[in-house]
Formats: sequence, C-alpha cells, structure tokens
Amino acid sequence: MNKGRMEAFSDGVLAIIITIMVLEIKVPHGNDFENLTPLIPVFLSYILSYIYLGIYWNNHHHMMHTVKKVSGGVLWANLHLLFWLSLIPFVTGWMGENNFAQRPMALYGFILLMSAVAYYILQLQIIKTNGEDTILSEAVGKDIKGKISPILYIIGIAFTWINTWVSGILFTLVAFMWLIPDKRIEKYTKE
Amino acid sequence: MNKGRMEAFSDGVLAIIITIMVLEIKVPHGNDFENLTPLIPVFLSYILSYIYLGIYWNNHHHMMHTVKKVSGGVLWANLHLLFWLSLIPFVTGWMGENNFAQRPMALYGFILLMSAVAYYILQLQIIKTNGEDTILSEAVGKDIKGKISPILYIIGIAFTWINTWVSGILFTLVAFMWLIPDKRIEKYTKE
Amino acid sequence: MNKGRMEAFSDGVLAIIITIMVLEIKVPHGNDFENLTPLIPVFLSYILSYIYLGIYWNNHHHMMHTVKKVSGGVLWANLHLLFWLSLIPFVTGWMGENNFAQRPMALYGFILLMSAVAYYILQLQIIKTNGEDTILSEAVGKDIKGKISPILYIIGIAFTWINTWVSGILFTLVAFMWLIPDKRIEKYTKE
Amino acid sequence: MNKGRMEAFSDGVLAIIITIMVLEIKVPHGNDFENLTPLIPVFLSYILSYIYLGIYWNNHHHMMHTVKKVSGGVLWANLHLLFWLSLIPFVTGWMGENNFAQRPMALYGFILLMSAVAYYILQLQIIKTNGEDTILSEAVGKDIKGKISPILYIIGIAFTWINTWVSGILFTLVAFMWLIPDKRIEKYTKE
Repeated sequence: MNKGRMEAFSDGVLAIIITIMVLEIKVPHGNDFENLTPLIPVFLSYILSYIYLGIYWNNHHHMMHTVKKVSGGVLWANLHLLFWLSLIPFVTGWMGENNFAQRPMALYGFILLMSAVAYYILQLQIIKTNGEDTILSEAVGKDIKGKISPILYIIGIAFTWINTWVSGILFTLVAFMWLIPDKRIEKYTKE
Repeated sequence: MNKGRMEAFSDGVLAIIITIMVLEIKVPHGNDFENLTPLIPVFLSYILSYIYLGIYWNNHHHMMHTVKKVSGGVLWANLHLLFWLSLIPFVTGWMGENNFAQRPMALYGFILLMSAVAYYILQLQIIKTNGEDTILSEAVGKDIKGKISPILYIIGIAFTWINTWVSGILFTLVAFMWLIPDKRIEKYTKE
Repeated sequence: MNKGRMEAFSDGVLAIIITIMVLEIKVPHGNDFENLTPLIPVFLSYILSYIYLGIYWNNHHHMMHTVKKVSGGVLWANLHLLFWLSLIPFVTGWMGENNFAQRPMALYGFILLMSAVAYYILQLQIIKTNGEDTILSEAVGKDIKGKISPILYIIGIAFTWINTWVSGILFTLVAFMWLIPDKRIEKYTKE
Repeated sequence: MNKGRMEAFSDGVLAIIITIMVLEIKVPHGNDFENLTPLIPVFLSYILSYIYLGIYWNNHHHMMHTVKKVSGGVLWANLHLLFWLSLIPFVTGWMGENNFAQRPMALYGFILLMSAVAYYILQLQIIKTNGEDTILSEAVGKDIKGKISPILYIIGIAFTWINTWVSGILFTLVAFMWLIPDKRIEKYTKE
C-alpha cells in the first residue's frame, strides 16, 4: 500500500481547514477602520490556529518522509488526527468572537490537547507498522517537545478558570516552541 | 488512461466534503458551555458522517489499489458516487439541527443507501474494464459486508417511522462494521 | 515545464467548485419533507451543474492526456476557463432560488457559453504549444459536439425570453450529449 | 526532503482561496438583472483578486521548477506567503461590498504589499537553501517587476487618501504587468 494518497488526502484536508478558517472573519458592514476593531480577537485567534495547523502540516510532512509502509491502522489513526484538527475552525471562531472568554479558551485548549494525543497515536501506529528500529521510533523516544506540549495544554486549560492571559501565553508558547522544525528527523534523513 | 488523476480528484472532493461539514456546526453567540448544548446532536451527526466518509475514502483507496485500467464508464461511475456523498453534509446538517427527527433520519439513511448503490456500480464498472479474473472481482464476490449494508440501511429507513433510536443504532452499526479495513483485498495485494 | 501541477491545480479548483455548490442547498428549518419542496429547483440546478462540471473535468482529463508541453499561454488559458467555471455555483444558486426564472436562466446559459469559449481557447493554446500534427489537433478538427454546443447555448439563452422550458431542455440536452466520453481521443491514445 | 508535497499543499491552499472568494458574491433575492447591479463592485474586486492569485500560482509554479532542495525555512516562508494570500478573500469582500471606499482599498493594497514581501522572503529562503549560483538567484537579481511592484503598492495605498481611482488603476496595472509570465526563468530552464 502506498503512502502517496494518504499524504495527498491529508494535504487536502489541512489545506481546506486552514483556508475555511478565514470564512470566520466575517466582512464588516461599515467601511471605516473602526469597523475592523471587533475583528481583532478573531484575527489573533486566526493567526494562532494558522500557526498550529502549519506546524501539524510541517511535522506530518517530516514524519511521513520516514514512513515506508502504511496499514489500515495508520490510515485510521491519520483520519482520527484530522478529525480533531477539523474542529479547530469552530473553536477558533468561538474563542475569537467571544474575545478570549474563559470557556471558549478551555475548549480551544482541549482540542489542541486531543490533536496532540491523536498525533501521538498516529506515531505509535506508524512505528507498529514500520518496526521499532526506524528513524521515527528513535526520534519519538527523544521527543521532549512532544512530551511537554500536552502537559502545557493541560496547565493552560486549568488556568482558564484562574487567568485566561496565562492560558493564552501558554498556548502561544507551545506554538512557538514547535515553530522550530524537527531538526532531529531532518538530520537523520540527511545522513 | 491513468488512474492517478481520478484518485487525486476523488481525494479532493472527499477532503472538501469531510471539511465543509464542519461549517454546519455554527459558532454559538454566548460564551458558556450551555450555549454548546443545542450543538450536541449536530456534533454527533458530524462524527457519524465523518466516520462514513472516512470509510468511503479508505475503501476507495483499497479498491483503486487493485485497478489497472480506467475507462470513461469508471470515471462517471466515480462521479456518480461522489454526487451522493456530496449530499452528506446537507442531510447531516438537517438531521443534526432537527435533533434526529423522523424525516431527516429517513433521508440520511436514503443518502447512505444511494452511496452504497453507487459504490457497488463503481465496482461493477471497474470489473467490466479490468476483467473478471482480478483481485477486486474475487473480493466483491465474497463481500458479505457490501451485501448486508444496503439491507441494514433499508431496515433503518423503515424504522424511522416506528422508532428512530433503532435507525440510529443501525446506521452506527453499519459504520462500525466497516471500520474494520477490508482485510481480504489487503491480504491479496500483499501476496 | 511539467503539466502535473497544472492538472493538480485544475483538479483542486474543480473539486472545490463542485463541492461548494452544495452549500447553496441551505438546510431548511422544519423537519418535514414539505420543508424540502422549495429546495427542489435548487436541487435540480445542482444536478445539472454537477453534470456540467463532471463533463469539464472528464474532458479536461482526456485532453491533458494528449498534452506534452505546457507554456505560460496554456496556464493562463486554463485559469481563464477555471474563472468562468468558478461562477457556476453563483448562477446555479440564483437560478435555483428563483425557480428557473427568465433572467437567471439567461445568465446561466451565458456562463455555460463563456466556459465553452474558454475551453476552445485552451485547446487552441495547447495546439499552438504542442504543434498542429498532434492527436488533439486532429480531434478538435472533427469535434462536432464542440461546435454545436455554443450554438445550442445561444439558442437556449434567446429562448429564455420566449419559453424558459425550451432553454432548460436545451441546456440539459447539451449536457447529455457530452456525457458520452470523447471516444475519438480515447481511441487515438489507445492505438 | 522532496518539494512535491510543498507544491501540492500550496496548490491546494491557492485553489481553495481562489474558489471560496466566489462565496462572497452572495446570491441576490430578486430575479431581475437590476438585482445584480449592487454586485458589480464585488464582481470587479473578484476579477482583480482572481488575476492576482493566478499570478501568484503561476510564478510559484515557475519558481518551484528551479528549486532542488526544500528546508524547514522554505516550508515556513511558504506558509507565511499563503497566510497573506489567505486574507485576500476577506479584503476583496470588504472592498467590493463598500464600492471601493478609501479604507478598504488601503487595506487591500496593504495585503498585496505584504504578499509581495512574503514572496520575496520565500525567494531569499530558497536561494539560501539552494545556493547563490542558481537560476533563481540570477533571475531575482534582474527582477525589475519584483522591485517595482512594492513601490507601486505603497503609492497606491497612499493615493487612497487622495484619489481612490488612481489607487485602483495602480493595483490593476501591477496585475497586468505580471500577467506576462516570467520569460527569464522560462528561458533559462529551456536551455
């Protein structure tokens, strides 16, 4: 079974998710810059989610590069990841339109957490199909960012009940932490 | 004629169908978790349809893997399948927004039935083009799931007039029955 | 310059056009079958446009199969075709929501006409780039359907001022005429 | 790392951006041609943005053709470009619905400017990854259009405070200037 079509389908879904998010930024009625002010939180949410989806696409790209075999389990683990990512436009819109209120931020963090869990499951399925002695297996073992992220999401979710600013900073911090591409896989594949 | 572009187009359409469904989950105005309660049936419909579209993509992927030749008949049988699948976001939205009322559920079942019929026609067209002695031909002959599904859809549609819960359970059951990937084709292609 | 990316981009645009059309079929508020009655003209328009877009994708597929070189002129002629096709969801929605009224039908016919013209220009550009002695050049020379279609569209547009039924039948007729795949190119490429 | 998936993802995002813009042309309620009159500025904005996105796709296609290596930096520079382009449907809608008012036109010009800057950064990243002695490096050095465009955008933005017609003409002029494909790279790659 070839991995090409799974990559193509994932690219398609990610491209659509990243693009339909922009539909949540509704065109305002007035023609003054002031009419854009209520859109600022919507726009900030859009930027954050855009970066997250960019990270997922980027890491997916790197990970798939090391994959040789694709099984039914891998296909479904991938669909499971895309399911959680497909909910990002909804939570982005809810968070943005409510100016980073407590509950929408908690749900946003929850979807980030579930996406991270789904990504981890996908890695496990790929390792199960391709064997323990692969580049990916080695990379996952040393993957500190992958282990810290869910913890930071959970702390972020908990903080929405105390101070939403801390949550926002945490969610942004994780994004920036991931912006640095996965040097390890990149290094291994070059060797 | 090469099958690559037919796969790419199908992937594109399926990726968009699966993603625009999320647009039916409209962002609520309030910022409390209670504002999400009316969205629960919409969300449950989304999950079920997501699984169904995932199954179709998955099975399409497996089936196309065995295909060597693509004719005009195959291209149109494929477009016919995509037509019925393209109506899934509409019926999902209608069913979800009406909290699994009788008529929307009957229509949902009908679209599932027509999709199954269209998938069967596509298989016949592929066999007609590629010959009776192919892996697919053999797999279709023994395909019990493919024969049971339409019957279960019809029973499910009939039950919407008696008890919509039975219909809902039947539609979910068929989905879970298909979640198990088509081991037979997978096995044959490995040999 | 390779044609692969032009095909991929065209597939993407066509897949999205065909799918977002379904967003024009708005989910009704009631849960009875009667609530679907006002959607019947919208649905019929959807079917017709779906078939037309399927035809364009299908013929595009056949045509590109014979192409060896892609120039800047070909890329822009292709974008020009996609431009007119991208307006199909709008005119489909306008025609459907106004129950096949005169003006929307005339505009629908006009967009079909412009798409046909754009397709013809694309063929000329491809022949200009790939040479007169190609399969496509020969096929276009004998292309009776391609010559009749614009005439039938113009008659159809004119008839919207007299009898919209005649226009509707003409637009449907052209679609069915094209449903038969271009046997000639298919035959030539097989040899 | 292969460039195929970066091209596929970019094609997907550009195809979706170009297509969802059409959703901003809302189907009017009446069925007379007069009902289309308020849509004329929306439609004109659509044409201009369609041409711009076509140009970006076209130039992206040409540029990627010369690329051999893709790094993490290139992937992110590409995502950065797609971010600014993803905002085009929003500014197109705002400009069109406000009949080319001053502020929406200024914002439209600003998004064009940022897209041009992002495209320039992407070129620098590609050169950094692929080396100074490449076709692209040479082409960028002589790229007069690429250097004039941002200046014309800035003049256009400034003119929205004086005369929006001048701005409109400038934004259209830059588009037509780019419609001519990048002969230089095309020439070099042919040799």
